[in-house]
Amino acid sequence: MARSDFRYLRIAGMLEQQILSNVLCLGDRLPSLRTICREYGVSQNTALNAYYHLESKLLIEARPQSGYYVRHASHRVPAIPTPSRPHATATFGDSEALVSRVYDNLGEAGCLPLSLGVPANELLPIAKLNKGLLMATRELQGSGVSYDKAQGSENLRRQIARWSFAMDCQLSHADIITTSGCLSAISYCLMALTEKGDTIALESPVSFGMLQVAQSLGLRILELPMHPQTGVDLNALEDALRKDKITICLLISNFSNPLGSCMPDAHKEATVRLMEKYNVPLIENDLNGDVYFGAHRPKSCKSYDESGLVLWCGSVSKTLAPGYRVGWVAPGQFKEKVLRKKLFHSISSTAITQEVIARFLETGRYENHLKKLRHTLKTNYLHFARAVAEHFPAGTLASRPQGGFVLWVELPQDINTTSLYAKAIKQKVSFAPGSIFTLQQQFHNCMRLNYGLLWDERVDSGLRLLGNLAKAEL
Amino acid sequence: MARSDFRYLRIAGMLEQQILSNVLCLGDRLPSLRTICREYGVSQNTALNAYYHLESKLLIEARPQSGYYVRHASHRVPAIPTPSRPHATATFGDSEALVSRVYDNLGEAGCLPLSLGVPANELLPIAKLNKGLLMATRELQGSGVSYDKAQGSENLRRQIARWSFAMDCQLSHADIITTSGCLSAISYCLMALTEKGDTIALESPVSFGMLQVAQSLGLRILELPMHPQTGVDLNALEDALRKDKITICLLISNFSNPLGSCMPDAHKEATVRLMEKYNVPLIENDLNGDVYFGAHRPKSCKSYDESGLVLWCGSVSKTLAPGYRVGWVAPGQFKEKVLRKKLFHSISSTAITQEVIARFLETGRYENHLKKLRHTLKTNYLHFARAVAEHFPAGTLASRPQGGFVLWVELPQDINTTSLYAKAIKQKVSFAPGSIFTLQQQFHNCMRLNYGLLWDERVDSGLRLLGNLAKAEL
Repeated sequence: MARSDFRYLRIAGMLEQQILSNVLCLGDRLPSLRTICREYGVSQNTALNAYYHLESKLLIEARPQSGYYVRHASHRVPAIPTPSRPHATATFGDSEALVSRVYDNLGEAGCLPLSLGVPANELLPIAKLNKGLLMATRELQGSGVSYDKAQGSENLRRQIARWSFAMDCQLSHADIITTSGCLSAISYCLMALTEKGDTIALESPVSFGMLQVAQSLGLRILELPMHPQTGVDLNALEDALRKDKITICLLISNFSNPLGSCMPDAHKEATVRLMEKYNVPLIENDLNGDVYFGAHRPKSCKSYDESGLVLWCGSVSKTLAPGYRVGWVAPGQFKEKVLRKKLFHSISSTAITQEVIARFLETGRYENHLKKLRHTLKTNYLHFARAVAEHFPAGTLASRPQGGFVLWVELPQDINTTSLYAKAIKQKVSFAPGSIFTLQQQFHNCMRLNYGLLWDERVDSGLRLLGNLAKAEL
Repeated sequence: MARSDFRYLRIAGMLEQQILSNVLCLGDRLPSLRTICREYGVSQNTALNAYYHLESKLLIEARPQSGYYVRHASHRVPAIPTPSRPHATATFGDSEALVSRVYDNLGEAGCLPLSLGVPANELLPIAKLNKGLLMATRELQGSGVSYDKAQGSENLRRQIARWSFAMDCQLSHADIITTSGCLSAISYCLMALTEKGDTIALESPVSFGMLQVAQSLGLRILELPMHPQTGVDLNALEDALRKDKITICLLISNFSNPLGSCMPDAHKEATVRLMEKYNVPLIENDLNGDVYFGAHRPKSCKSYDESGLVLWCGSVSKTLAPGYRVGWVAPGQFKEKVLRKKLFHSISSTAITQEVIARFLETGRYENHLKKLRHTLKTNYLHFARAVAEHFPAGTLASRPQGGFVLWVELPQDINTTSLYAKAIKQKVSFAPGSIFTLQQQFHNCMRLNYGLLWDERVDSGLRLLGNLAKAEL
């Protein structure tokens, strides 16, 4: 590192400390560049680099013709919600009506789509995917027009196997079945391993898609308590397993939806050992694992699977190309059963899009894209956290996702987000109300916000509007 | 019509009569062109046109350096099989093992794939589809990278609706849901309308894919007697409906698989009226309807549906692009239920391939392609019928498909096609043995042959080999 690098980092560090300790407060104007040059005895370039650095960390912002201002307020980051406490009784239920309202409104032109957990097109490498399609038509035998094998593109399966080594899963292409997205993988797993009336254990709150597929197959749903940072409560899980209530378990191990929690490695290992002890299969929905904010991709439960009880599911729908419908599952000891379900219900998956994704993985374009995406999402999360702290009512809590796309916000108890939703939609802002993430009477004062979009003034205004609507409810 | 046109047709007609009445026999050499010119007092060109005409009708063939020979033998076209007579008791069953053998061997390099009912790549407009993909990435918003709507591409649904007018179905795009292929459509319909233990009425013999999806959902299967030309026996159907045994009915109305039968319009109408009388839904698998050998596309049962009990399913998997996984269903009164199943189990279908197909329909490229495909398939069918007549044991019967891709061959009773299959596979020829088209003890002496490929010497030899293997069994 050059000497000048040290200098600007040292200056930035000192300013950062002043901000974090509230010596400089939110909205304060920072010293001019000229002042910095004089006070620290550095060149204008070094001073500018220090400010750029603070800007990239979202601590300050430039205002044209005016200077740099503190945008961060350390004491106003929302506190973390308390762990959830669902009833320990499995239930059937119907959350369809509200979910369909959310889906219907999502399509409405002009609505700010904070309701879904999917990246906006602006964050996806569309031009490169298009080139990939063109290449695939040239290089794939028959241009992908004929039926793919039931198990899926071998090229793609090899790349997923290679990729799985990053999280200590030594999978081979023979262990993997491709599917039309992650939900399709989960659907085949459930169809293969459950009967109507069986009980499935899920996180609470949990992505409504998981509730819907389980309901669609007539399963009883047992909701498990969740810690907003470490995920599922292992004591509650073991308790349910011991009481012999669970046929199958489905967990989003990394960056759960909607909480954004990530199971620590020790929890993952303990979960797999529990599954083995009670001989219950675990469907691991790991579709967000590649979108981590830390230094490394977190491991998966599959990393600890010695008995083949873990059915590891993933996709590129949340990172690369939702509309391509490319997902997969490594079903462990249940491979033949799951493969039969895929074959009997769909013959095979779309051939050409699998090939494009395989090449993205093979050539390193996927990792390059992910690097950018992770950076953008982490920055967006910080923007959202700040906006919630600034605009939402006092006492609002928010999750601290360690990856993924969604923020879970817990408003004061008096606020009902279902009625808030109706008001927000009229003002062209959509979010996902808390009650659709459970079949029980919970989370009426919560909401899920999607930060997988391009941060701009419109989003900031949308969040301010939500905050003001919430305040008006009090 | 010019005078010379009349002349060549008159000459061709006279020669055709001589062939059909066995004045000229199979293998006979026809008079030389010079002889024709002399005898009929016409130009060499007119004589040549007459011979071209007979050649296009597969009545004669040119042999280089030798002349024209009779290739058709009217009295040797195989007779039609007798109607099937399955037991009128619904059963559970397991035909998995054999089917998996067929599928596995299909993938084997170098095997002549007479076992599947799908067109070979050589018959598909791959270059045009590739161009379509490129166009779609340019014209589709977001290049099809983001999630499609749950109901599917509106553009595609509009084109299917337009197309449906050809068979007197006045569907609108709002009536249609796109799916990942026809099997996927049928799967969602069954999931929406049946419970484990319910009874489904199917044709017998029937495509094993239909048996598998029904078995996978735990349905009892009632096999209905079939006439090889007019399809399902309506008396048997009504009998079963009257006895209140059927939850749902699934029929391949046009060019059934494996028989190739086509329900006459009156049968279609009567079937729909029966469904109404007993209030039982009918899933109509109409994936072959566009591949007709007659003058017009046959109608569908949906054409007569006034109560919304018909769930009309189709795809382009058998005509255009199997690997694209583009299919659809018009579920009548069950639209919301079926849409829910699609949404809950897969979110949406692949966006980009739907767009390509929509444009193929829109621009007339689909109809142009179908014209060629129908001609090729009809010609192929005639080749296959001749080859079966020539090479297979005396007493072999064969269906006379009026469209579609498959020929149903009934060998003498002593021949078991399951053991024949094992022998054929060793010689690198695959076919579909009759026993996989039923859950009962039937069709042990039958086979299904796929003629949806490029006719050449290799195919002819393959059929001769099958015939010889069969003769050796006697």
